Amino acid sequence: MASRQLSETKLRRRSMSTSYRLPPLPWFGMDIGGTLTKLVYFEPSLDNAEEEREKVAHIRKYLTSNVAYGTTGLRDVYLEMPNVSFLGRSGTLHFIRFPTCSMSIFIDMAKDKNLKDLADMICATGGGAYKFESDFQSRLGMSLLKLDELECLLNGLIFLAERHPLECYYLPEPDPSRSDCVRQPYSLTRQSDCYPFLAVNIGSGVSIIAVRGPRDWNRVSGTSLGGGTFLGLCCLLTGCETFEDAIALAERGDSNKVDKLVMDIYGGDYELFGLRGDLVASSFGHMMSVDKRAEAKPEDLARATLVMLTNNIGSIARMCAST
Amino acid sequence: MASRQLSETKLRRRSMSTSYRLPPLPWFGMDIGGTLTKLVYFEPSLDNAEEEREKVAHIRKYLTSNVAYGTTGLRDVYLEMPNVSFLGRSGTLHFIRFPTCSMSIFIDMAKDKNLKDLADMICATGGGAYKFESDFQSRLGMSLLKLDELECLLNGLIFLAERHPLECYYLPEPDPSRSDCVRQPYSLTRQSDCYPFLAVNIGSGVSIIAVRGPRDWNRVSGTSLGGGTFLGLCCLLTGCETFEDAIALAERGDSNKVDKLVMDIYGGDYELFGLRGDLVASSFGHMMSVDKRAEAKPEDLARATLVMLTNNIGSIARMCAST
Repeated sequence: MASRQLSETKLRRRSMSTSYRLPPLPWFGMDIGGTLTKLVYFEPSLDNAEEEREKVAHIRKYLTSNVAYGTTGLRDVYLEMPNVSFLGRSGTLHFIRFPTCSMSIFIDMAKDKNLKDLADMICATGGGAYKFESDFQSRLGMSLLKLDELECLLNGLIFLAERHPLECYYLPEPDPSRSDCVRQPYSLTRQSDCYPFLAVNIGSGVSIIAVRGPRDWNRVSGTSLGGGTFLGLCCLLTGCETFEDAIALAERGDSNKVDKLVMDIYGGDYELFGLRGDLVASSFGHMMSVDKRAEAKPEDLARATLVMLTNNIGSIARMCAST
Repeated sequence: MASRQLSETKLRRRSMSTSYRLPPLPWFGMDIGGTLTKLVYFEPSLDNAEEEREKVAHIRKYLTSNVAYGTTGLRDVYLEMPNVSFLGRSGTLHFIRFPTCSMSIFIDMAKDKNLKDLADMICATGGGAYKFESDFQSRLGMSLLKLDELECLLNGLIFLAERHPLECYYLPEPDPSRSDCVRQPYSLTRQSDCYPFLAVNIGSGVSIIAVRGPRDWNRVSGTSLGGGTFLGLCCLLTGCETFEDAIALAERGDSNKVDKLVMDIYGGDYELFGLRGDLVASSFGHMMSVDKRAEAKPEDLARATLVMLTNNIGSIARMCAST
């Protein structure tokens, strides 16, 4: 606890100080989550002279010329952000991820590439910044500058929305069967009148954060039924192995083969309470029947899992918004 | 819709009228839910002369001398309420249940026992009172007096609590590892100062009802993640077939083999938000790992399903209570 408080104080001092010296390249940041570790790498634009002197060329080339690292690391090329200005330099942000359960392999690889010679500290957030701190210290000789994940999340959200306005959107008409269900950009900047808003962060679990202003927020709710539940249940129910496979299955499935709808129980709408017949009354409610189980395909089960979890998260977030 | 309004009006008139003529014996009531149909039968105490004259003796004997009916009907003997005074008569209330998917078999059996000769109307609630109304009419020649299920629920709750005060209890200390985690009776009567309270009705799905007074209530929230989800997921994940089997599995299981806890992600507590290390961070979060899946037993999966759903319902109910 003492050491965590120390790093947080150190961080605040560093990030708020105007005389803060730029850290040496390469610039990395890690979010070590319960399921995935996300690594962001800033590739600076270099002139020829700089390129000649660059000490970290081997790391830059390794990261930017590959899209796969080891057996489990991947670079999401579609997320890449070119021409980003960052702490007075311009360059490209690259996004790499690997399963957190492969952290030991990552540390071995970082040792192999002599990461230690280039930096003695990595900015890190997520639960793993605490869980793996001693491994980084003992096996790599590197310390982690631990940043709180929800503060990073909110800062990252605003950073991204200011640079990519279309990343932040709303649906004026959320019914996907209607032709006017189209994304409208929503302005989310540090100076805009977007406050207050709720940030619903769906990771392995879910955190709901009430944001009243640029530095004024608190975690108001959360649920353990999150992304980890989706993947975990899909692996068990369909035999899939990855998030991508689970989402691909869900895209093709029909959850009505799995869920009991209001009309399955009432024969139609439950008018007294304004519950439409096509609403889900009981998620997975058909699956107690042998016959219905025999009919349900892996796609249907993945879809029902996704619908159950997203409806639940949406419902909890709505309750938070109305309180 | 018109016919539903008609029956509800009829009901209110009947139940509020002081000159209401007692219906002929036998007295039945049905709650036709999304999963189970619950049938309550009032067995009147009869003197010898009455017993001689009784026209419904064959039904009374059939119901009270058996605990199983057909292949799927069961009488829950442990729920039986003897010496109940009811509409000026005393007797015993019996509770029988069968899966709603066996409704067709039930109607055949009722036809076989000539139920039609004894009553031309059955009081019924639950979604099935709407869904199966035309089947009762066309195949049995009986009509259903449809009563709203939440109004019946609240009336039944007060009826039960007034007669069996220990059925309604609270836990002053809810931590089951503590010795003072013992049930304390809670007085819930029509005249008591128990109002306002929240009734959380866990059926196939869940309804949350804010009750402000004996006739002043409304449905404020609900979730499709309910009892049907528990049974449906347990059937899929463990191969069990009945609610009793699923609960028996859950009693012996360890959900920590299935769920990712805060300590699995943070290595300990997440102190900044006061989240203890032993809280569930991600339900089923371990199940994305092949190794963890191989270790998880059916008992652990059933327990994790139960913990996920009860935590979620508790969390939503708590939010309703605090708004």
